[in-house]
Amino acid sequence: MPSPTYVTFSAGTSGSWRIDRIAAVTGESLPMADRLAVHENSRSQMPTNVRWILRGVTSNMRYTNHLENESLAAIQQRLGRPEATRAALIPIRKTEDWWSLAQDERRAIFEEHSRHIGIGLEYLPAISRRLHHSRELLEPFDFLTWFEYSPEHSEHFERLVHRLRHTEEWRCVEREVDIRLSRVDETGLLT
Amino acid sequence: MPSPTYVTFSAGTSGSWRIDRIAAVTGESLPMADRLAVHENSRSQMPTNVRWILRGVTSNMRYTNHLENESLAAIQQRLGRPEATRAALIPIRKTEDWWSLAQDERRAIFEEHSRHIGIGLEYLPAISRRLHHSRELLEPFDFLTWFEYSPEHSEHFERLVHRLRHTEEWRCVEREVDIRLSRVDETGLLT
Repeated sequence: MPSPTYVTFSAGTSGSWRIDRIAAVTGESLPMADRLAVHENSRSQMPTNVRWILRGVTSNMRYTNHLENESLAAIQQRLGRPEATRAALIPIRKTEDWWSLAQDERRAIFEEHSRHIGIGLEYLPAISRRLHHSRELLEPFDFLTWFEYSPEHSEHFERLVHRLRHTEEWRCVEREVDIRLSRVDETGLLT
Repeated sequence: MPSPTYVTFSAGTSGSWRIDRIAAVTGESLPMADRLAVHENSRSQMPTNVRWILRGVTSNMRYTNHLENESLAAIQQRLGRPEATRAALIPIRKTEDWWSLAQDERRAIFEEHSRHIGIGLEYLPAISRRLHHSRELLEPFDFLTWFEYSPEHSEHFERLVHRLRHTEEWRCVEREVDIRLSRVDETGLLT
């Protein structure tokens, strides 16, 4: 888990995820494209015919305490489950005010006031999730969160993002784009 | 302060810092070279004749709480003071066990057990410091810490690194190199 994985999300004409919609939640959106390709640890390999590329790297946990960590580890599911044919990629940038806060102040907003971990736990194990850090890569977003779930949990997922977007933490979000996807096979058919 | 700065440290034949010595503290060392050049936010510009390059990015504070933040901000000095003609670059890599710990566990080792911030504060304002994160850039080290001080504070600095290296936190350091430098002018004379 701790070893960082460098992940490239490229939107264009190829990839195993069909882009169903792209919506701006806060601030500027991203251009629409047909497909999204997700590549791990292939920094040299540059996809062709892309409309945009976002990059991020997995890292250590920044806010979760030991008990929360154990609760998450006991219940969360891996990515790539065959039945999880729906996905969301949600790039977020937080305000400079957020980044100027000390660790205890960010933690208080994140969990004690906003229950980010607590709310997230309620939607496990149905929804798998991986967080990618982009701020240190000088990318346009600070985080790229990738979610996977099965079609019957779509409403479940809507409820999760709706609740998080109404927390105190989200007042510190200055740009957010919501990209929804469905997994397709080589011929472009839904899997 | 919060906006990340991408910094390149390149060791070779040019640069405004003369490398006085390179010592391995834990694990493998780095090759010796004459000079070190420090470049900010110049990712495209590739220095020539280099023996090694290390890259890092400044980021938000990861452990410091609000009060500690205020204590540091009140007393710490900027980089580039004319009298601070000595410098140290200390690249560090921590163990996978460290990175697997939750935030509260890392904070407890870092400050409650090791007094990393508390010890550091005792050596301000004589020693200025900037931390660069490298782990998310998939570099060979997790952090590059850059220190600047005047010659009369050299022993002061030795005491600081000695004390930190005998803390519980340092048991989680699996590689550390200590690079000492003196500032030189264009003709190579000490400034």
